[in-house]
Amino acid sequence: MIRAGIIGATGYAGGELVRILTGHKDVEIRWYGSRSYIDRKYYQVYQNMFRIVEDICKDDNLAQLAEQVDVIFTATPQGFLAGLLTEEILQKVKIVDLSADYRIKDVAVYEEWYKIEHKSPQFIREAVYGLCEINRDKISDNTRLIANPGCYTTCSILTAYPLVKEGLIDMDTLIVDAKSGTSGAGRGAKVPNLYCEVNENIKAYGVASHRHTPEIEEQLGYAAGRQLTINFTPHLVPMNRGILVTEYARLKTAAEGKLPAYEEIKAVYDKYYAGEKFVRVLDKGVCPETKWVEGSNYVDVNFVIDERTGRIIMMGALDNLVKGAAGQAVQNMNLLFGLPESEGLELVPCFP
Amino acid sequence: MIRAGIIGATGYAGGELVRILTGHKDVEIRWYGSRSYIDRKYYQVYQNMFRIVEDICKDDNLAQLAEQVDVIFTATPQGFLAGLLTEEILQKVKIVDLSADYRIKDVAVYEEWYKIEHKSPQFIREAVYGLCEINRDKISDNTRLIANPGCYTTCSILTAYPLVKEGLIDMDTLIVDAKSGTSGAGRGAKVPNLYCEVNENIKAYGVASHRHTPEIEEQLGYAAGRQLTINFTPHLVPMNRGILVTEYARLKTAAEGKLPAYEEIKAVYDKYYAGEKFVRVLDKGVCPETKWVEGSNYVDVNFVIDERTGRIIMMGALDNLVKGAAGQAVQNMNLLFGLPESEGLELVPCFP
Amino acid sequence: MIRAGIIGATGYAGGELVRILTGHKDVEIRWYGSRSYIDRKYYQVYQNMFRIVEDICKDDNLAQLAEQVDVIFTATPQGFLAGLLTEEILQKVKIVDLSADYRIKDVAVYEEWYKIEHKSPQFIREAVYGLCEINRDKISDNTRLIANPGCYTTCSILTAYPLVKEGLIDMDTLIVDAKSGTSGAGRGAKVPNLYCEVNENIKAYGVASHRHTPEIEEQLGYAAGRQLTINFTPHLVPMNRGILVTEYARLKTAAEGKLPAYEEIKAVYDKYYAGEKFVRVLDKGVCPETKWVEGSNYVDVNFVIDERTGRIIMMGALDNLVKGAAGQAVQNMNLLFGLPESEGLELVPCFP
Amino acid sequence: MIRAGIIGATGYAGGELVRILTGHKDVEIRWYGSRSYIDRKYYQVYQNMFRIVEDICKDDNLAQLAEQVDVIFTATPQGFLAGLLTEEILQKVKIVDLSADYRIKDVAVYEEWYKIEHKSPQFIREAVYGLCEINRDKISDNTRLIANPGCYTTCSILTAYPLVKEGLIDMDTLIVDAKSGTSGAGRGAKVPNLYCEVNENIKAYGVASHRHTPEIEEQLGYAAGRQLTINFTPHLVPMNRGILVTEYARLKTAAEGKLPAYEEIKAVYDKYYAGEKFVRVLDKGVCPETKWVEGSNYVDVNFVIDERTGRIIMMGALDNLVKGAAGQAVQNMNLLFGLPESEGLELVPCFP
Repeated sequence: MIRAGIIGATGYAGGELVRILTGHKDVEIRWYGSRSYIDRKYYQVYQNMFRIVEDICKDDNLAQLAEQVDVIFTATPQGFLAGLLTEEILQKVKIVDLSADYRIKDVAVYEEWYKIEHKSPQFIREAVYGLCEINRDKISDNTRLIANPGCYTTCSILTAYPLVKEGLIDMDTLIVDAKSGTSGAGRGAKVPNLYCEVNENIKAYGVASHRHTPEIEEQLGYAAGRQLTINFTPHLVPMNRGILVTEYARLKTAAEGKLPAYEEIKAVYDKYYAGEKFVRVLDKGVCPETKWVEGSNYVDVNFVIDERTGRIIMMGALDNLVKGAAGQAVQNMNLLFGLPESEGLELVPCFP
Repeated sequence: MIRAGIIGATGYAGGELVRILTGHKDVEIRWYGSRSYIDRKYYQVYQNMFRIVEDICKDDNLAQLAEQVDVIFTATPQGFLAGLLTEEILQKVKIVDLSADYRIKDVAVYEEWYKIEHKSPQFIREAVYGLCEINRDKISDNTRLIANPGCYTTCSILTAYPLVKEGLIDMDTLIVDAKSGTSGAGRGAKVPNLYCEVNENIKAYGVASHRHTPEIEEQLGYAAGRQLTINFTPHLVPMNRGILVTEYARLKTAAEGKLPAYEEIKAVYDKYYAGEKFVRVLDKGVCPETKWVEGSNYVDVNFVIDERTGRIIMMGALDNLVKGAAGQAVQNMNLLFGLPESEGLELVPCFP
Repeated sequence: MIRAGIIGATGYAGGELVRILTGHKDVEIRWYGSRSYIDRKYYQVYQNMFRIVEDICKDDNLAQLAEQVDVIFTATPQGFLAGLLTEEILQKVKIVDLSADYRIKDVAVYEEWYKIEHKSPQFIREAVYGLCEINRDKISDNTRLIANPGCYTTCSILTAYPLVKEGLIDMDTLIVDAKSGTSGAGRGAKVPNLYCEVNENIKAYGVASHRHTPEIEEQLGYAAGRQLTINFTPHLVPMNRGILVTEYARLKTAAEGKLPAYEEIKAVYDKYYAGEKFVRVLDKGVCPETKWVEGSNYVDVNFVIDERTGRIIMMGALDNLVKGAAGQAVQNMNLLFGLPESEGLELVPCFP
Repeated sequence: MIRAGIIGATGYAGGELVRILTGHKDVEIRWYGSRSYIDRKYYQVYQNMFRIVEDICKDDNLAQLAEQVDVIFTATPQGFLAGLLTEEILQKVKIVDLSADYRIKDVAVYEEWYKIEHKSPQFIREAVYGLCEINRDKISDNTRLIANPGCYTTCSILTAYPLVKEGLIDMDTLIVDAKSGTSGAGRGAKVPNLYCEVNENIKAYGVASHRHTPEIEEQLGYAAGRQLTINFTPHLVPMNRGILVTEYARLKTAAEGKLPAYEEIKAVYDKYYAGEKFVRVLDKGVCPETKWVEGSNYVDVNFVIDERTGRIIMMGALDNLVKGAAGQAVQNMNLLFGLPESEGLELVPCFP
């Protein structure tokens, strides 16, 4: 039995970790960390867990926790883990960090976009960027620290990855227009996240400045074999869960006036994803919808070739709290401990 | 392995049966019946099942199906099963009927409220009303036909049952004010169920005439030991899933000017539900919310004693597609086949 | 031109006052009071008012404001106005108070339900309870202080009033089950009002303890000619605007085994409301829906007689921010200044 | 008094025409055309109009209607008006057509995208494309036929128009990612528009094939002075009203490694829109939100210059039923009859 601790267990991503780990046969949650609700029953914060979880919330004590568990999930604000992590801790416990602290290899880029000083850059190199479908071979039982990818990032990267890796699109033309449900904004009590402000409304935010931009650029840059600069625009959608990305790029052969056939592009997607349990390349003509992946660890992707403009429109959908956060974190944990990658993640999407 | 067939597999309740049975380790779905989508891949109707279900939809052939499976779930319009059921079929297969055809013991009452003639009243007596928490001892491996309770009914009955059974409330004063998500209206393409008609709106409907009224009256009448007449008012709420009932009744002792203490009433609820996995009596002061049971087979109940009026306000919440339909149907199937009652139903509610 | 000041102009009710008064040809808003946003442009708080309102938000200075305007609207927390109001102020300016401070005539009842001491009980007697359809003859140009009714209260009272006044229902059996959109909870940044907590969810709250209860009891008590005790249960519905009430009461003649005909009850409603612009008694069989009154000052009401139980089910719908708050406040202002009662309130409901 | 007839009065755009014209002091609606609801009271279809509109719905008789009114609004399916329009009718009455029949000047393009034969191409040349802010000088009292622009089109064009007209962006790089509320899909009873299918969901549709594409291309082509080919991707958002567009284009000077300052671009927007009542260029850093224009005729626009990619991100928001349909139709009617352009359109956006 893997003993797990969660720091930040009462945020939305933390709550989803609890939901998923509760159904994972090889894991036992030993620590529900929550600075805001110390000593309260966990189910009093999330009544859906009434009669399922009896534990109380504890303080966020990383060092103490490292003694008691095999793996720690940190679903905490940026800078939290970086400020506390030590070599001593990492010698005792594996960590899956759902924050951005170790995602970006260039500490200067991190500090510029996040506007905070990185307190433990010495661990950045070691951290594995836990986008399992791409980096699973970098995760072994020696791995100590996983930087769990961002929600937008996971969706944006997986949607375009095969075409980027195969060099089929002009990376200077890549535009990612993303739409997210409101749970992505977290459980903080802020006016812009009130029901009446979000409901019956849609807006862009963080235009040309959202922090997931450099993360997408770095990871797609590895696939492309060069540095990238892209446009990424997130939007807030009146729904609880789900991210949809619509990505635009010019097909390289368009310059020569010819475009690949649907089947050629489909074959490229299949080359990378046919064996992937959690990436579903939809049938021709079917556009991904967030509702079809809700509650599950799936990413649904598809594409349309536009003969008129020479562009390809790629689309991807996932549940931001599952594949975009807690589900992928558990997938990483499975890899860390040599379990089947989908253990505890056989979640059938819930419709309607 | 239990072989199951579903007739009406592409309605919302049918879809939920597929979702739940897909995760049930002892069941294999052999027949996805859907008159509207014959020969189409099931996942083309519900893309959430892409790469999970590969079967095609078949016609609704009850007799043929009876030869091939161990249990048939009928998630069909009223009158469908009653029009087709025969002794021959029942000798071959067990049936869990999600329609109202065999719920009401008095065929005249059925025909009056449903405005259709009952074509096979000879099976009404045999059918067990499958409200598991109350009738599980009537279900054995000899049982052939289960009348799976209605969604409003399940919630309305379980919320009041202990007090009715113990004779604590004046049954002539019972009023059930119910609120339901829109999936309860089914997947038929009708203007009143369009997004723009339901969204940002709430209304009562079927006032003093909703068909679940006699079903509640009959079942609570058994508990009360006499015939009942109640008020039941359903409302349509802009959300996909969930039923909340708010029930009002005068406490009998109010006539003598004294009311039971909170603890007394709590003890009555605990007497009936402390051992029930799927009924959660919430802590004092906590009102049930539909979101806390979403996707699960739980019913959350609680109550408030109003010292001023001598009434008790009882509240209950469930997911209309799970405990209100497919989940309870699977719970009944488990009883029919001697499986643990919660097999395949260990669904953790999804929040947010 | 009537000069108006608004204290609490950046709450939802305050915002709605701005929207309505902006379209009122006889009113000019001179003061946008908002403690939270002092010195910011009003439109920066509510961008819908960009290029419509250029003013900045000012502090909540009641005494200073009284010098500069003809009428003050206070859309402020309970206790605010009671703590500041003086005879001197009332000699200079008329006040329409959207809080509860002067609604309840018995100061002990107010203090018990609101858990605050009333600082200026000397003005309670003078204040007119501004439910215009019932009390308009109490409002003249001598009236100085209007206690604008609560949102739930307006809907609850107007829905039952004719039957109460005519003595047709047994007042000891009256139960009000109310459902409200989320704007009723105000614009405060609290976790329970976050999008993800309200969306896809319904719950009761304030069961047997909501503060609008004594207000309904008092006003319906005047109509009934005696003190009343009722049950009132509010519910939070995932929508921005709208209140629906479903009210249950036993018809008095039911005791004698006979019920009034539909036409008799309809005639009673028409007696009180046929001449009322803002109360619409719907056609037989049509249930009120909140969407049909959205953005307008209408209250839609209707009823169903249940032959089986001897009860009448009364239903009413209004927009909580208009007839339930700002619209009714403007209606009261019109009465105070001798304007046509519907001036500035000819708002056509917006659908969908 | 202008006598108006509406054909297609019971669709959502037709209903919005009724709402707006009801408040227009110079217009009287004489004909509520609705094939589906002939002889029913209009308010029985839209109960929000109870006690406001007493008329009954009539058949769609264009010729008869032309005799009785001064202006006809056709809110009808594509091909309807083209199939009925004659010179005789146009000699009697002015027509504002909300369908696409006369929007596209090249009949071959129309027939290719709409897959129907155009039955009266002889009137295409005469029709004025009624995007008032751009074409108002083409509308006079001699104008007989207005092609009222599409909802997506209005938003897409107005958001980019100043930059296109001034030649600041590379038109071959223009991408329009659009998001619409569900009322844009109309009131037809179809499964994909049911509440449970749309709610908690977002998807793209009509990718690289939506019919508003050639309309945008044609109109922006006039501004650019050459033929254009763009990408336009609509998305369905779970809300009733509102369109948001996010548009991406490369700034021409980026090729030379320098970008215009914010103020330069702002000045360009102001050049075109400072005098426009219904186009609001928001303050720096404020992103348009659909909720801020709901119920009004405003279009809110803004932009962000991305120094990193050399692109400009333009954003625009409108209410698809008002500025995207009925409001703009009334704006055109005002121009046709020499009324102030904003007559009847002083609608303050409703928030929340």
